[in-house]
Amino acid sequence: MDVAIIIGSDSDWSVMKKAVAFLREFDISVEVTVASAHRTPDRVINFIRNCHAQDVKIFIAAAGMAAHLAGVVAANTTRPVIGVPINSEPFKGMDALLSTVQMPPGIPVATMAVNGAKNAAIFAAEILALQNDNLKNKLAKYRAEMAAEVERKAETVKLDFLKGAD
Amino acid sequence: MDVAIIIGSDSDWSVMKKAVAFLREFDISVEVTVASAHRTPDRVINFIRNCHAQDVKIFIAAAGMAAHLAGVVAANTTRPVIGVPINSEPFKGMDALLSTVQMPPGIPVATMAVNGAKNAAIFAAEILALQNDNLKNKLAKYRAEMAAEVERKAETVKLDFLKGAD
Amino acid sequence: MDVAIIIGSDSDWSVMKKAVAFLREFDISVEVTVASAHRTPDRVINFIRNCHAQDVKIFIAAAGMAAHLAGVVAANTTRPVIGVPINSEPFKGMDALLSTVQMPPGIPVATMAVNGAKNAAIFAAEILALQNDNLKNKLAKYRAEMAAEVERKAETVKLDFLKGAD
Amino acid sequence: MDVAIIIGSDSDWSVMKKAVAFLREFDISVEVTVASAHRTPDRVINFIRNCHAQDVKIFIAAAGMAAHLAGVVAANTTRPVIGVPINSEPFKGMDALLSTVQMPPGIPVATMAVNGAKNAAIFAAEILALQNDNLKNKLAKYRAEMAAEVERKAETVKLDFLKGAD
Amino acid sequence: MDVAIIIGSDSDWSVMKKAVAFLREFDISVEVTVASAHRTPDRVINFIRNCHAQDVKIFIAAAGMAAHLAGVVAANTTRPVIGVPINSEPFKGMDALLSTVQMPPGIPVATMAVNGAKNAAIFAAEILALQNDNLKNKLAKYRAEMAAEVERKAETVKLDFLKGAD
Amino acid sequence: MDVAIIIGSDSDWSVMKKAVAFLREFDISVEVTVASAHRTPDRVINFIRNCHAQDVKIFIAAAGMAAHLAGVVAANTTRPVIGVPINSEPFKGMDALLSTVQMPPGIPVATMAVNGAKNAAIFAAEILALQNDNLKNKLAKYRAEMAAEVERKAETVKLDFLKGAD
Amino acid sequence: MDVAIIIGSDSDWSVMKKAVAFLREFDISVEVTVASAHRTPDRVINFIRNCHAQDVKIFIAAAGMAAHLAGVVAANTTRPVIGVPINSEPFKGMDALLSTVQMPPGIPVATMAVNGAKNAAIFAAEILALQNDNLKNKLAKYRAEMAAEVERKAETVKLDFLKGAD
Amino acid sequence: MDVAIIIGSDSDWSVMKKAVAFLREFDISVEVTVASAHRTPDRVINFIRNCHAQDVKIFIAAAGMAAHLAGVVAANTTRPVIGVPINSEPFKGMDALLSTVQMPPGIPVATMAVNGAKNAAIFAAEILALQNDNLKNKLAKYRAEMAAEVERKAETVKLDFLKGAD
Repeated sequence: MDVAIIIGSDSDWSVMKKAVAFLREFDISVEVTVASAHRTPDRVINFIRNCHAQDVKIFIAAAGMAAHLAGVVAANTTRPVIGVPINSEPFKGMDALLSTVQMPPGIPVATMAVNGAKNAAIFAAEILALQNDNLKNKLAKYRAEMAAEVERKAETVKLDFLKGAD
Repeated sequence: MDVAIIIGSDSDWSVMKKAVAFLREFDISVEVTVASAHRTPDRVINFIRNCHAQDVKIFIAAAGMAAHLAGVVAANTTRPVIGVPINSEPFKGMDALLSTVQMPPGIPVATMAVNGAKNAAIFAAEILALQNDNLKNKLAKYRAEMAAEVERKAETVKLDFLKGAD
Repeated sequence: MDVAIIIGSDSDWSVMKKAVAFLREFDISVEVTVASAHRTPDRVINFIRNCHAQDVKIFIAAAGMAAHLAGVVAANTTRPVIGVPINSEPFKGMDALLSTVQMPPGIPVATMAVNGAKNAAIFAAEILALQNDNLKNKLAKYRAEMAAEVERKAETVKLDFLKGAD
Repeated sequence: MDVAIIIGSDSDWSVMKKAVAFLREFDISVEVTVASAHRTPDRVINFIRNCHAQDVKIFIAAAGMAAHLAGVVAANTTRPVIGVPINSEPFKGMDALLSTVQMPPGIPVATMAVNGAKNAAIFAAEILALQNDNLKNKLAKYRAEMAAEVERKAETVKLDFLKGAD
Repeated sequence: MDVAIIIGSDSDWSVMKKAVAFLREFDISVEVTVASAHRTPDRVINFIRNCHAQDVKIFIAAAGMAAHLAGVVAANTTRPVIGVPINSEPFKGMDALLSTVQMPPGIPVATMAVNGAKNAAIFAAEILALQNDNLKNKLAKYRAEMAAEVERKAETVKLDFLKGAD
Repeated sequence: MDVAIIIGSDSDWSVMKKAVAFLREFDISVEVTVASAHRTPDRVINFIRNCHAQDVKIFIAAAGMAAHLAGVVAANTTRPVIGVPINSEPFKGMDALLSTVQMPPGIPVATMAVNGAKNAAIFAAEILALQNDNLKNKLAKYRAEMAAEVERKAETVKLDFLKGAD
Repeated sequence: MDVAIIIGSDSDWSVMKKAVAFLREFDISVEVTVASAHRTPDRVINFIRNCHAQDVKIFIAAAGMAAHLAGVVAANTTRPVIGVPINSEPFKGMDALLSTVQMPPGIPVATMAVNGAKNAAIFAAEILALQNDNLKNKLAKYRAEMAAEVERKAETVKLDFLKGAD
Repeated sequence: MDVAIIIGSDSDWSVMKKAVAFLREFDISVEVTVASAHRTPDRVINFIRNCHAQDVKIFIAAAGMAAHLAGVVAANTTRPVIGVPINSEPFKGMDALLSTVQMPPGIPVATMAVNGAKNAAIFAAEILALQNDNLKNKLAKYRAEMAAEVERKAETVKLDFLKGAD
């Protein structure tokens, strides 16, 4: 298994689905579970152990509010942990961002933007691509497609801009 | 043992000493350890287990930055957990406050002001006083002394104020 | 009476109802009133006095904006006071959080997350459980149920995840 | 008595002295006390009552952190209450500002800048000047002096500016 | 004329109407205009001059974003100026609050809560009541009515609370 | 070409259209493209080069989140660059504002309010008017029209105000 | 005269000196004065009028706290106004930044970083360079020198880095 | 070459040295340069190209204020980019954090805590350890040493705690 995704609550699933979709598109094997650092601390630990057993390479952890999940995962593995702070009311993810990114020296969590599910997946792909030329090529192609999409959108905006010029 | 204090780093000790001093003044038995939620997750769990064995009644957990310590303790006990966010650079404890107070429904942490070590101890005493009239009297006396101190300080300020009136 | 809940405005009732529901579910006796620290300061004092007369053990105070209510209650009792900052416009409860948690040394308020009504009730139960084994068992059962619920939700997410794998 | 100043702690005195100095310079009678909304709630109430007995016209209340003092005064009088949030660590007075200014409808506190002691005194003078032409003239003169001081400082800056031009 | 209200934009009118309604209820004479500190600086100055000619006693200024209006008024009068920061997107009035309250020493603005229109009017009434016993009585009555309303709402909440107890 | 507008995403177009409308109303020639500093860094550089070739005088760059676009443009030209932070979830443009305005010494970006598209266009017109008396007159007329509009709105508010007086 | 600098207080001079030094280095004529939007509103207006008479092309306005100065200047001219928020206690320039940048539509202020004196001067030079090839060349040279300085510093860091490698 | 570190200014070197020290301790080859995204955009691009030529696996980019450096690197490579926001005045690294972490979908930057130099290095080691058992063992040993250090510090705190018990 390449990547394991842990989400702190099933309500984070709609956000984190995008990470799964990206990973599948890149043929990166992925596992998902719901496990709360606070409500099910043992479940988190057991899941990490299972992941180690399956030689999971990268963890992605997503949580909102006092988002301890990524930190708990990082405390229990030396594999790369990517944290995704989830936007939740009332503090719009600022609490989750600070809880995820402000890790003490020794235990890093690679933090993405609030709700940055897709970037978590891309970053995982970038790590895996270090030893996988196929993935490297896919990433390059993905970048090119993004650029092409920006160009297409630029055309649409241009048309609207020119229309206004009449 | 009445109260167990866990601090996330030895650098928090100078702040949390004030909690110990208060508890001792009130003859409340107290234990202290350093245990990092991130660097020593097992140590935290083991300490909590030992505390349960010694029938510790209340936990006080103090940490800075992405302060997960109080949350981890709360996740592993149903006894009251008091959290003290520690003021650390650069965000002046705002990260620690949000990481401590914004707990999800189900796992409460009773959060004090940033660096609120003394109030953590007083709050522990208030809980213990519910079944200890001696403590209840001490708390009442403590309040009266605080009020008296405010009055003494009011006198000092008054003298300075009157001097300025010359 | 075990717990008294004071809410600063009737508009806070929809939030704080959850605390009442939890307490009742745990067979903890509870009283509720509306009393504003600013609009009805005497009513707050009188209510606290009545609570003392009925030997109320724990106060829960909930208010928004410049949320002084928990502080006023704490200033007039030495029993544990739990503060719930209420999310209100435009500052999303940040004003209420800071007004509730940043208490000066001497007068603690155990602060919950913004709108953390349920956790206030659970924390009250944790205090009362210190001398009530029945409550202690209920809390342990409640934790187990929360964990089971997380597991059920993990199943649902898993199914959705596997469906996407097709 | 025209103005009563209440400070939440003797540590606020060094800031609030400037208000006293201004009021004395304007021959406005002033009284000062230290009274904590949290540590000495009764003292605050008694002080307000005494002020009412002495027909105090305006209250100035200064406090830091969860600064409830101005709100408590406002809740117990219908005379104008001016609030001065005090800059205190770690949140630099943002907690005191929000606790002072975000009063609910019905009970206003006229809030000054953080540590705005002098402006509190000037604002009190502006209120009193509504029925005192002598004060009105003094305020006009004070404004003119401030303007003149700005001009003097402009000269000093100009000299330094011209020196640099060599 | 007792009170002049200046609003920075007609979009603030729906908020500031509440101030007018309160003042009229208290038989306080009031004038309103729209004048932008930025778009119509001369109009602001002229309006202030006209107000001085009509012996307006108190100014209320309401504006959003970089809310300079109250400061501009205060810079051009020595009569009391009450500032009302208006809640506007995207910063929810935090920009307006800081722009209004953080006045430099010498030129005070008595700042109310964000959108605190009613409190601005009440505070104006409190100032005017210093020399008007009729107003003083009305304010006392208003307070009593607010308290009574809280009590009525407490009854409603109580009924709902008791219903839940079945 | 006088002005080139670069927007980081086609979703910013609805905001930035207002800048185009203003520039056209003032007969200022304008070009628009979509180019992302992150997804299409080369496209940004190429666009700037083309703009230099067409002797574009002023750049306006608009982006949200970690808004690097204006900074990248400024790093690649010595012509004036105006930055417009775009309001995007969850941080309401605070991230875009700080990313745009907090430029290091040496490379200025003239930052407008969040979503301040129109002001970016007006500011561009103010620069161009330094050598174009026709534009200068248009700006003066525009100001007069804004003032007149404020006056018209003041009339509308006045009518509503007087109606309420019945 | 090319550029006029207005500073709200003589205490801002030490920061704004850097703007003057840069402008002189570029042989751009500059005038400086101290004028407070709040303490000397007429002085600000008069200074702007004098600047118009001397055909000043660009205004730079620097102020702290509720920094209205740049907005007041912009309200009274249609020439480009550059705002420099000054870092002052306790809010570290956040109040000045929001007061300067969040201008309403119609009256733009080109805002620099907090204490961004040098960038204000560079930006003024960029505007003036639009019609002055000599300035354009100087700006290009300045950029090249900055780049060279970065390279020199890179060398120094490299040496230190290599030393550590022993 | 395994890791390339780019710092936006030589003043960031004292912070980022800790990353170099860690990497060397782990025998991970590392290169360092100073290159500013704003002052030397071409230098950044050239450095990245050179790194690609040397098959650098991971980039670490550190910058303060409007910290675009990590984003620029990420825009020009598909290798993992780790961002370190640098604490700089006046906003204490909040501007650098948001500029670094809030990347748009498509271009991830793995963000560490403000000044989190050491964690950036550890995270790089975690990535490299995925295909290097020697590194994996070193990381495990490092964790064990950190835990041991916490235990030693716990002893020291315990001694101080016991001393106080006398």
